[in-house]
Amino acid sequence: MTRTLDLNCDMGESFGAYTIGDDAAMMELISSANIACGFHAGDPVVMSKTVRLAKQAGVSVGAHPSFMDLYGFGRRRISGERPEDLEAQLIYQIVAMQGICAVAGHRMTYVKTHGALGNIAAVDPDLAALCVRAVKSVDPSLTYVSLPYSETHAAAEKAGLQVACEIYADRSYTDAGELTPRSQPGAVIHDPEQSLDQVLEMVLNGHIPTTGGKRLPVEPATLCIHGDTPGAVEIARGLRVALEENGVTIAPFTNP
Amino acid sequence: MTRTLDLNCDMGESFGAYTIGDDAAMMELISSANIACGFHAGDPVVMSKTVRLAKQAGVSVGAHPSFMDLYGFGRRRISGERPEDLEAQLIYQIVAMQGICAVAGHRMTYVKTHGALGNIAAVDPDLAALCVRAVKSVDPSLTYVSLPYSETHAAAEKAGLQVACEIYADRSYTDAGELTPRSQPGAVIHDPEQSLDQVLEMVLNGHIPTTGGKRLPVEPATLCIHGDTPGAVEIARGLRVALEENGVTIAPFTNP
Amino acid sequence: MTRTLDLNCDMGESFGAYTIGDDAAMMELISSANIACGFHAGDPVVMSKTVRLAKQAGVSVGAHPSFMDLYGFGRRRISGERPEDLEAQLIYQIVAMQGICAVAGHRMTYVKTHGALGNIAAVDPDLAALCVRAVKSVDPSLTYVSLPYSETHAAAEKAGLQVACEIYADRSYTDAGELTPRSQPGAVIHDPEQSLDQVLEMVLNGHIPTTGGKRLPVEPATLCIHGDTPGAVEIARGLRVALEENGVTIAPFTNP
Amino acid sequence: MTRTLDLNCDMGESFGAYTIGDDAAMMELISSANIACGFHAGDPVVMSKTVRLAKQAGVSVGAHPSFMDLYGFGRRRISGERPEDLEAQLIYQIVAMQGICAVAGHRMTYVKTHGALGNIAAVDPDLAALCVRAVKSVDPSLTYVSLPYSETHAAAEKAGLQVACEIYADRSYTDAGELTPRSQPGAVIHDPEQSLDQVLEMVLNGHIPTTGGKRLPVEPATLCIHGDTPGAVEIARGLRVALEENGVTIAPFTNP
Repeated sequence: MTRTLDLNCDMGESFGAYTIGDDAAMMELISSANIACGFHAGDPVVMSKTVRLAKQAGVSVGAHPSFMDLYGFGRRRISGERPEDLEAQLIYQIVAMQGICAVAGHRMTYVKTHGALGNIAAVDPDLAALCVRAVKSVDPSLTYVSLPYSETHAAAEKAGLQVACEIYADRSYTDAGELTPRSQPGAVIHDPEQSLDQVLEMVLNGHIPTTGGKRLPVEPATLCIHGDTPGAVEIARGLRVALEENGVTIAPFTNP
Repeated sequence: MTRTLDLNCDMGESFGAYTIGDDAAMMELISSANIACGFHAGDPVVMSKTVRLAKQAGVSVGAHPSFMDLYGFGRRRISGERPEDLEAQLIYQIVAMQGICAVAGHRMTYVKTHGALGNIAAVDPDLAALCVRAVKSVDPSLTYVSLPYSETHAAAEKAGLQVACEIYADRSYTDAGELTPRSQPGAVIHDPEQSLDQVLEMVLNGHIPTTGGKRLPVEPATLCIHGDTPGAVEIARGLRVALEENGVTIAPFTNP
Repeated sequence: MTRTLDLNCDMGESFGAYTIGDDAAMMELISSANIACGFHAGDPVVMSKTVRLAKQAGVSVGAHPSFMDLYGFGRRRISGERPEDLEAQLIYQIVAMQGICAVAGHRMTYVKTHGALGNIAAVDPDLAALCVRAVKSVDPSLTYVSLPYSETHAAAEKAGLQVACEIYADRSYTDAGELTPRSQPGAVIHDPEQSLDQVLEMVLNGHIPTTGGKRLPVEPATLCIHGDTPGAVEIARGLRVALEENGVTIAPFTNP
Repeated sequence: MTRTLDLNCDMGESFGAYTIGDDAAMMELISSANIACGFHAGDPVVMSKTVRLAKQAGVSVGAHPSFMDLYGFGRRRISGERPEDLEAQLIYQIVAMQGICAVAGHRMTYVKTHGALGNIAAVDPDLAALCVRAVKSVDPSLTYVSLPYSETHAAAEKAGLQVACEIYADRSYTDAGELTPRSQPGAVIHDPEQSLDQVLEMVLNGHIPTTGGKRLPVEPATLCIHGDTPGAVEIARGLRVALEENGVTIAPFTNP
């Protein structure tokens, strides 16, 4: 039996004179590029170049919108904003990416929220609904990339959006199916073999192994690859090769 | 004989907690709204609200892109940037506005460049060509609003874009058909009657009266209304009424 | 018996082409100007002009630092930032204001935190301690303006800073001595007479009247005047005149 | 005979999540750190850390102000701004750096303008005078770092400021004593030996060798080291060692 898995990675995070990540190398290894939209990272020319790079490599493109927070790289938690403001910010970012894809002759097929915005939305039903509403208002055929067992997953399904279930290789899961908070021991899996085993268990057997010993059902569509850690490209390459050796085909969950 | 003229005005220039202009009042008087795209003014929620206001009022919407310069309100002259950066910035702004219109169920029909960008492009053939290229790459059916006797007018026509010729009521013209620089005496026309006479001469007789006494041929499509000066709404109302009394129909140059 | 009260107001909140408030008129009515430092509002030339205006009017100047959030005017609640980042941001803002005062031949005598930063710090002992530490590291002779019955008041006193106790005319107080949250009925006092009575009770009798009928001891040093509401200047003038008629002298709590 | 030369380098150019340069390594090799002030690069915590690093290493600190242009890293040429705005921006940056040094127990001893601002000021007497005026208004004891044979050098001397004459190892000079524009052949010296020879000629013999074969008198105080090119640290180390082997002592031109 052959199973298919998408590899997604945050791309296009450079800004002006500042560079983050080795997008050219990473683009050869992944199948979906979450491209920053200029609010927490990225700028117009970086967006344009990254979209063209993705098109050349046959990689799917998704918008990667965030709180409006360049200084904090979208990792600061911002609240107290009127919901209409935040919804308009998300729409702005998503349509900007969609339009830049159109100009480049590529197609934007999904949205994945970035950083603090994604983390809060995963557990806050109001914010989850707001994010889903923004995506749907732009284009109801867009796929919503989301963790399973999250408010965003529930909201996207409820709204009738296609959901791509996202998994992590290097993070452990609680019995509730959520990522173990980084503040807790065992949250990050450092051993490559253990990471691979977890992914294979999820992809081939359809189960999330939890820290409490449970096995939660999951239908993984895409694996999140980190792009800004030291040795990120090598780790990604190793994981991809190992997955392929274990019979997993790497391909986009949507046609680029 | 009835002649038609469009009235365009810069709109959506508020940002965050900051307000500029009385958009609700002005929207009742104009037929085309040049909406800021968030680079020199405007923000996502302001853009969204202004587009909805325009739709309700039957007013056409154009993107009003600028240099990336919130502090300077797009009035500072910025050079030394790579052309590809500036082109990508223009595309970003135009597609963002286009997408926000689409979400609101309205249609963006034209582009007018803002401030220093427009002023430099009017006399710099390379920058004019860059601006036209950006617009065309997004959508070749967009109309380009431009002064006559300018590099942008020439570039837009050469590229096959529809051009809407823009005129001013309160600025005098040189014998070359350009606006008299503000640094020179007589650049600004303060007398409402003289302003009206100049517009009627251009609209009804097809001539630009120049400071040197020439009459240059012109086919005006749209008149620029200022929105951020004291008494702007009253001045606009007076001009509109006077134009209508002289047989000029106010209507968009493009269907909204 | 004559009692003295300072009137403080947020000033210098304009930015680039954007204007907020009528600083020239308000400066004639107040005795202390909390001047924005460019992070949530203000810019270098606005800061410089506002300091000079204050000096001419014999008005004390305080730095009014904020979260780094121009879009949100410092009203968005930002968390998840490393404490060292926020502390450095506060120091940056305070020394910038201090230096601009020095160049203008004026003296900065106090610090009042702005918006969400101030609101959170009032109830969060860690953030309160951070704010106090930042102020003290710049200049331990600076006065810290703070609500009574707050974590900031406690932290500033503990650190040995002089504290100027701040009161409100148009906000009611809970039995804990805190401002009634705006989400609750009766939070805002709309009646000018009731506002005046509350201030006189606090200034002349040294008691905060609370919504539960308590009278909490207070030694008010400064009254917060709002500058960005409609009719702000007239409201401020009315309050000042009424206070003076009731024997209260308006003067800075620190020598400018 | 022993001659002394300062080595200065742009430092503290990281911003938020973005890193530029290897400041820790470079700080061991230089004697003066030109620290970005948050307008084209740098942020409050980066400024604070870089100042502390400099203090530990016995390195002098200068403010490195710029046009307000994070996106363009201060390399875009901005004009059309009111002079009072630009002057206030410079003062803001300089006093912010000065205050951050004071909090860290270090002293800021000089100012060097960055990028496009410095390039334009070198040939524009009005801008040169404005920059000098800003520095002097903050503290007339500050040293002004400037190219010789420039408008800034003339303006700073005329204003009575101490000037530190800056030289380049890897740039050739015209017969007018200016750097050969990068657009011309031979502008950049790629050969390390030729670079060293040029520096020694300037430092030991007091002459600038020009592309036209002239020898212009010069009293070099500081050599500009580039920090953001590939291999920057190794190039700097090589140059420093070679200079010391040729009898040049590396030391700040001002006491830190």
